[in-house]
Amino acid sequence: MRAEILSCGTELLLGHITDTNATYLAQSLAAQGMDLYHVSEVGDNQRRVVELLRQAWQRSDLIIITGGLGPTEDDLTRESISELMDEKMVLDPQLEAQLRARFAHLGTMPERNLKQATLIPSAESIPNPVGSAPGWWVEKNGRILVAMPGVPREMYRMWEEEIVPRLAKYTGGLIFTRLLRVYGLGESAVEEILTPLLPSTNPTIATYAKVDAVDVRITAKAEKTEDALQMVAEMEEQARALLGDHVFGIEGDTLASVIGKALQARQQTLSVMESLTGGMLASTITDFHSSSKHFIGGIVTYSTDLKVQMGVPQEVVDRYGVVSEETARAMAHAVRGRLGTDFGIGVTGVAGPDKQDDKPVGTVHIAIEGPEGTVTCMGPGWRGGRTDNKRHAVLTSLNLLRRYLEGTVVPQ
Amino acid sequence: MRAEILSCGTELLLGHITDTNATYLAQSLAAQGMDLYHVSEVGDNQRRVVELLRQAWQRSDLIIITGGLGPTEDDLTRESISELMDEKMVLDPQLEAQLRARFAHLGTMPERNLKQATLIPSAESIPNPVGSAPGWWVEKNGRILVAMPGVPREMYRMWEEEIVPRLAKYTGGLIFTRLLRVYGLGESAVEEILTPLLPSTNPTIATYAKVDAVDVRITAKAEKTEDALQMVAEMEEQARALLGDHVFGIEGDTLASVIGKALQARQQTLSVMESLTGGMLASTITDFHSSSKHFIGGIVTYSTDLKVQMGVPQEVVDRYGVVSEETARAMAHAVRGRLGTDFGIGVTGVAGPDKQDDKPVGTVHIAIEGPEGTVTCMGPGWRGGRTDNKRHAVLTSLNLLRRYLEGTVVPQ
Repeated sequence: MRAEILSCGTELLLGHITDTNATYLAQSLAAQGMDLYHVSEVGDNQRRVVELLRQAWQRSDLIIITGGLGPTEDDLTRESISELMDEKMVLDPQLEAQLRARFAHLGTMPERNLKQATLIPSAESIPNPVGSAPGWWVEKNGRILVAMPGVPREMYRMWEEEIVPRLAKYTGGLIFTRLLRVYGLGESAVEEILTPLLPSTNPTIATYAKVDAVDVRITAKAEKTEDALQMVAEMEEQARALLGDHVFGIEGDTLASVIGKALQARQQTLSVMESLTGGMLASTITDFHSSSKHFIGGIVTYSTDLKVQMGVPQEVVDRYGVVSEETARAMAHAVRGRLGTDFGIGVTGVAGPDKQDDKPVGTVHIAIEGPEGTVTCMGPGWRGGRTDNKRHAVLTSLNLLRRYLEGTVVPQ
Repeated sequence: MRAEILSCGTELLLGHITDTNATYLAQSLAAQGMDLYHVSEVGDNQRRVVELLRQAWQRSDLIIITGGLGPTEDDLTRESISELMDEKMVLDPQLEAQLRARFAHLGTMPERNLKQATLIPSAESIPNPVGSAPGWWVEKNGRILVAMPGVPREMYRMWEEEIVPRLAKYTGGLIFTRLLRVYGLGESAVEEILTPLLPSTNPTIATYAKVDAVDVRITAKAEKTEDALQMVAEMEEQARALLGDHVFGIEGDTLASVIGKALQARQQTLSVMESLTGGMLASTITDFHSSSKHFIGGIVTYSTDLKVQMGVPQEVVDRYGVVSEETARAMAHAVRGRLGTDFGIGVTGVAGPDKQDDKPVGTVHIAIEGPEGTVTCMGPGWRGGRTDNKRHAVLTSLNLLRRYLEGTVVPQ
């Protein structure tokens, strides 16, 4: 079944609100195995709404309209459907009685509200228990058109309680998805590695670049739950074999949650001393909800004097420079000792916009000292903005700790 | 000028992401006085992208496409424009050299990335300083088509730095805007305060809720520069009179940049000791590019022991609790003394998800000690998620410091 979404409201086209209704409906349609090929936003203009409806009526089996069911002159969804269907809007006595009852304790009902009690012959009214605008369910010539209010909580409820059950008989098959989260490879590298799996049409596999990872989504469609699950599981196994330990988690995981859970399982603690990341490393670690169980604290040593005050030997800074592997090692060692934790991370580098001690912007040195020794890595010299460089250094640090905890890097 | 937005990406139609790019562009188009009648989302399917492009090419003067400029097989925007224009994509040697240079330090560039270095004869390349995909600017038969990456931060930058200036000559009359940044009031409170100014149609005034502020945008359109500037200036004066010292800056300012510049002008320094914000306060301060001139460092005292180790008297913690005004004061005092700065901020509270010592989630105590004494404030008990609570506490701290520096709170 081919679905299409039409979101009505001039406030969308002025950028006053974002069309989160479409996102919600898209997710629900995907979960029901329906294809969604088009989403359109249109203002409160009957000619343009009708134009889009005519187009949708040609190319889709299910048209979902949100918005434009209010009582004002701007609300033109009913009028537009009526024009599309060439059917006249008629006041429905039962809907009118319900509407007047709703307004009974509010005083007089504005007469313009009466249009919320109208129907066309092909339309059936859909109850709206949390608002004054009922929806419309229109079935004609083998196609379905659903009109719902634009207010999200009214729409969600109408969709879930009224529309989804009515659609059940049209949805062929079930959809299951699995999301793998990948760090340490760019999106194009992930796709290149997954090349053997990309041609598959059911299940499908696709990559998405996110701020903190590359996501790989596997989606299978089948008549039976167990078949869909089986298809997803088989492709997940193949994808994991190809991507190796670059996969750090599944849907809902972050690098911070993965290392947090690993440290808590081992009953170990963590502290950090950071300079170029300026507190973002500690902040990212503490975004994980139970981080107080493993994270003792951090020191943001933005000045060199403070590094020395906090235990980095002056001679290390003098000999190797503030931005050096040796200083990163000394920071990790100092904070681990001073805060008495199992692991200590030290991060130093150049966030930009200016270079420092002749080290280019984006240079970063990371060291992690733990019970089994120390691992280090050097950032590749990122060239994003200041905040991007900070974020890259944070994620690279957390990924290095993850690999330390998983045993896929060897401490020395 | 009639604009139209086309957002490409199957992830939109699966509901994995929400089309916030369209909202951003819609706001910007409105501010420039351009009409936006259609926004469409389409998946990674060349036939459907081309169909929509043909339709847009008929009905709009400016077509803005986001997404589909990546290196993968799914990224079909260039191919679709090439089909629409009936022009062949050709590798551009200069773009190729730039692309290869970008990859130089990352090892071999996957060959599929090469399509990011192609152009068609009608297209001009638009630089993307923060990503690998340049945009396209296509002008043909009196119409303009702009293709930009879907990654929001890449798109925002390209739009603001490259596209808006190019569009200036088409926007019919001159548009001037002024953005005032407001902190400490919700969007609806700002709108209520600005009620007397809202009916004005030229200049217009509108509010936008952002993560770190409420923005108030004044937009004037006139034939002559001086007229537009005059109109904006008059309304700015009225808006500032109504909003008072809740206005902390203009376009481009953040609370961190405003306090950074103020401290640098006074040649004063800052340090922080934070617990519930977990490093986010230091990180936000260091997002300002020259923060190393005034920010000495921070201590993330996530455990109580570490607070005491760093100079908070044990008896204060025992007597008043970790989440208390007295502990915040002691943190500010300790870090200011230990790090030898002019100002010290102490922040303690409950980020959630669980309450702590019977203090509800969202409770926060902030203290700022400076040369003229100490100011404190208590957070109102936010009920957002963990990250929201952290961010509120950070912004409230910075805003309190701003008011301290401006002299609109009285230290004691």
